[in-house]
Amino acid sequence: MKIYRINMSNLSSTIEEVPDEWRLMGGRALTSAIVAKEVDPACNPLGSKNKLVFAPGLLTGTMAANSGRLSVGSKSPLTGGIKESNAGGTAAQRFAKLGVKALIIEGIPPGDKYYCVHVHKDGVNIKEETELLDKGNYEVIKTLTDRYGENTGVMTIGQAGEYKMSAANISVKDPKGHIRSAGRGGLGAVMGSKKIKFITLDDNDGAGIEIADKEAFKNAAKIFNKGLLSHPVSGDALPKYGTDVLVNILNEAGGLPTKNFRRGNFAGAEKISGETMYDTIMERKGDPTHGCHVGCVIRCSQTYNDKNNKYLTSGFEYETIWGFGAGCEVDDLDIIATADHECDDIGLDSIEMAVTMQTAMEAGVISFGDGPGILKLLGEVKEGTPLGRILGNGASFTGKAYGLTRVATVKNQAIPAYDPRSVKGVGVTYATTPMGADHTAGYAVTANILKVGGFVDPLQKEGQIELSRNLQVATTFIDSCGLCIFVAFAVLDSGDVAQAMVDMVNAQYGTKSSIGDWFELGRTTLQTEKEFNRAAGLTSKDDRLPEFFSEEVPPHNAIWDFTNQELDSVLPF
Amino acid sequence: MKIYRINMSNLSSTIEEVPDEWRLMGGRALTSAIVAKEVDPACNPLGSKNKLVFAPGLLTGTMAANSGRLSVGSKSPLTGGIKESNAGGTAAQRFAKLGVKALIIEGIPPGDKYYCVHVHKDGVNIKEETELLDKGNYEVIKTLTDRYGENTGVMTIGQAGEYKMSAANISVKDPKGHIRSAGRGGLGAVMGSKKIKFITLDDNDGAGIEIADKEAFKNAAKIFNKGLLSHPVSGDALPKYGTDVLVNILNEAGGLPTKNFRRGNFAGAEKISGETMYDTIMERKGDPTHGCHVGCVIRCSQTYNDKNNKYLTSGFEYETIWGFGAGCEVDDLDIIATADHECDDIGLDSIEMAVTMQTAMEAGVISFGDGPGILKLLGEVKEGTPLGRILGNGASFTGKAYGLTRVATVKNQAIPAYDPRSVKGVGVTYATTPMGADHTAGYAVTANILKVGGFVDPLQKEGQIELSRNLQVATTFIDSCGLCIFVAFAVLDSGDVAQAMVDMVNAQYGTKSSIGDWFELGRTTLQTEKEFNRAAGLTSKDDRLPEFFSEEVPPHNAIWDFTNQELDSVLPF
Repeated sequence: MKIYRINMSNLSSTIEEVPDEWRLMGGRALTSAIVAKEVDPACNPLGSKNKLVFAPGLLTGTMAANSGRLSVGSKSPLTGGIKESNAGGTAAQRFAKLGVKALIIEGIPPGDKYYCVHVHKDGVNIKEETELLDKGNYEVIKTLTDRYGENTGVMTIGQAGEYKMSAANISVKDPKGHIRSAGRGGLGAVMGSKKIKFITLDDNDGAGIEIADKEAFKNAAKIFNKGLLSHPVSGDALPKYGTDVLVNILNEAGGLPTKNFRRGNFAGAEKISGETMYDTIMERKGDPTHGCHVGCVIRCSQTYNDKNNKYLTSGFEYETIWGFGAGCEVDDLDIIATADHECDDIGLDSIEMAVTMQTAMEAGVISFGDGPGILKLLGEVKEGTPLGRILGNGASFTGKAYGLTRVATVKNQAIPAYDPRSVKGVGVTYATTPMGADHTAGYAVTANILKVGGFVDPLQKEGQIELSRNLQVATTFIDSCGLCIFVAFAVLDSGDVAQAMVDMVNAQYGTKSSIGDWFELGRTTLQTEKEFNRAAGLTSKDDRLPEFFSEEVPPHNAIWDFTNQELDSVLPF
Repeated sequence: MKIYRINMSNLSSTIEEVPDEWRLMGGRALTSAIVAKEVDPACNPLGSKNKLVFAPGLLTGTMAANSGRLSVGSKSPLTGGIKESNAGGTAAQRFAKLGVKALIIEGIPPGDKYYCVHVHKDGVNIKEETELLDKGNYEVIKTLTDRYGENTGVMTIGQAGEYKMSAANISVKDPKGHIRSAGRGGLGAVMGSKKIKFITLDDNDGAGIEIADKEAFKNAAKIFNKGLLSHPVSGDALPKYGTDVLVNILNEAGGLPTKNFRRGNFAGAEKISGETMYDTIMERKGDPTHGCHVGCVIRCSQTYNDKNNKYLTSGFEYETIWGFGAGCEVDDLDIIATADHECDDIGLDSIEMAVTMQTAMEAGVISFGDGPGILKLLGEVKEGTPLGRILGNGASFTGKAYGLTRVATVKNQAIPAYDPRSVKGVGVTYATTPMGADHTAGYAVTANILKVGGFVDPLQKEGQIELSRNLQVATTFIDSCGLCIFVAFAVLDSGDVAQAMVDMVNAQYGTKSSIGDWFELGRTTLQTEKEFNRAAGLTSKDDRLPEFFSEEVPPHNAIWDFTNQELDSVLPF
């Protein structure tokens, strides 16, 4: 495989050999290694010294189930630290088929022109782009599909990325031509700062990837596949109800943050639950289950139609529904779906924007429960009005604009859909992951709520530090393979499935590594990320939850009670 | 003397003895010591754990010339670090006459009510305030003068402080009933967060301060007074032209930052110079020279009238005139004076707002040169519109809202009126003072430009580190005495004047300290401040100038060329 490198300061590109040190890295391990090696940690994230790195996972492009995830790495304009943001869609597998181990974009072009980048088997073309400027992602993808055909991959930024907003994401075309997102950390702003509106991927005649031991790979892949399908979460709940199955579960557990984290349960939960969503989708002739990338066997995505049975959104996730729903006291699934569509179109992280709306409600910009108000505010972001500039820069920024202290963020990144006081394991992850508040970085909801990989009482401190630490390490490896995080349910509950994951990597790369070896890669990656953050000026003081989490949250009247020493022991390097 | 303490969470107050460790501290040394001892460095600056501390200087209330300055300390919502913000006016001397060593305000009241605080010889009264909410500072001071008489001191916040904006200052009534400001670092937002609209000071029947050796004090004060009056800067240039005398001087030196730091000289300099201002004031029957506090012998303040000879502003400083003038390419002194008046009235740091306007021009919100546009934008801040919320939170915040990298701040605080590339000594101060970019923290313009205290070539690196370090230490002592920074010209040029300053302190407190002992207090205070900042999460990465200062600035084509190691050696503790 090769490294493709683009220098936007002079619109040049090169194809480079993969250095030995990066050969057994992919996805997050690779993007973080490249960013740590090549980006000055003290640089301005929107300045010419920052870089934007795309990498498929170690297993991407193979027949391994759920291995088509893309990692995008950079210094984050939201957190000020290193960022790996992860997306489904078709891009990762096209990179893999093209033999592109990573695409590194550096520099900023002089002048005001915008550009588009086309990646193909012989390299890269960079052209000026004018037609699609200031257009939303749906129109960009539709136009590019018309321009280049169905089989072209697209990674694009919406208006938010062009405005260089810290909530701007990078959207990736999925197999149905809809939108998946590298959502978190404002990497769309970095792409915007480099004046790239979109990147197209043509994998025709790509060399594809090599597998050292095809037979061994096939055998392991079978066990892995079967493991995912036979687990009750990834084989049953997620395919049927999508991630939104969690609304009722978290509401029951008292961990569904309601009205900007004032309560842990929501009177309107049933109306926005996965069960209600499923019935609505069926009634409106939507699609209740499909994958975000080819080869996904969990298929937790869906197509949600509006009242006229017309497409409204897809990849409609629990966290988005929680955030615009319970978090804002909105119980209208159609409004939430419209907000999700708008976020995808404008190119905004829907978690960040949902917590931003909660914050705007806290400030009195609109009232709690005002669903139409949310859509109006998203319109302001799309237009880039002053109010839109505030909101589009995220929850911390909005809180600061209005002088608030009740703002649910860590490292300026919005806290997602699980109250850290009553699902304490994920709270430890929010505080300590180098990524800023991110449930996917160490999804302790597994053992806390779903009783996957054992059980750790969500309301007690005991065991949470170890749980979060182990999950953070394991997740970093999963992210490095290009695997969907939802393989973790089966991996955590079955040693055979975990071994099969490692066997696939060994079979592909001709290595003889143990699970422990690969977890060591996870640990090393976390260390690299923490060192980058430290050199960027972040300290242990950034590994803390906001002060207001010392308040009790009903119904369990739980509080956030970890000491600084305990938090500093999670990733002690 | 006593410590007055107010707890806003239950509207209570106490009068406490001064602990021994604070007896020989005043002004900045004392506010920083109290903040460092009592405020959790990691706290939210707008939350209940932050405190707001007012302290007169060691010499305040005596006959020492220029000793009536007030220090205000807190954790800054702008920089995230410790802050001492310094103001003239009548408050410091009233505190001293009341025997108040420091006023400490802690807690936040529950509910939405606003309060006012009345300080008098028997303690403190706290009452609800409704009439003056949402009113500008000029109206507040006028109303309170009507309510309580001429002889009542006032410290107040305008709309900006009520909005808890990071550029909000605390305004102090001066001897003419006009406004002086504890401008920098957003301490008006801290006062707003504590729901205090204003503090009145009645020093009737105050015990006054004691002097251990009156004769010795009188002798030293005479030498000090004479020293100030006989120095060409404090005895001649400042009384006649005010601080605005610096426009022509910096313009000649190529260090007058023009068009958001793109050049070091401004075609319209003459029109906004101190000489032009003097002629205009005389023509319009203004007052060319008076002091910001009783006992000032330098008298660099003035009353600037409008075209109809009516009061427009006073305390019309070089930095303000530079910022809205050369920085914004505006050469209309009346517009700049109106902007100054509006900043005073809304309660905004005029340096922060001037650089914010440069940043808004950089973003294209208005054009460079658009003076009326500046006034319109200040109106937005006053109204608290979304655009006003952006601007009122300062230059860094505005730059972030618009995705800019050319933003002249250090630790989020705006860089003032001397280009750090062509006046390198003050650049070292901007980078390294614990206060965020602040020329007054180590005013190397002395040796770099004015040839006071020797000469260090402003365009060369040699000697700047030592210059800035020595000035930072000396200034911290001057700030602790409650002395105006402009005493430094005479102190730097005359050993006798420096000795007289120390003799006054010794005479007052019955101590036998040397100059070196008091400079040690300065060093200790700086160390306390740096330790607080480190515990707040700031690191050496915050002691850097923005990347764009690596660009050459005409006319000297100077660049910012200090290494990180050099900067880290300035205050090596």
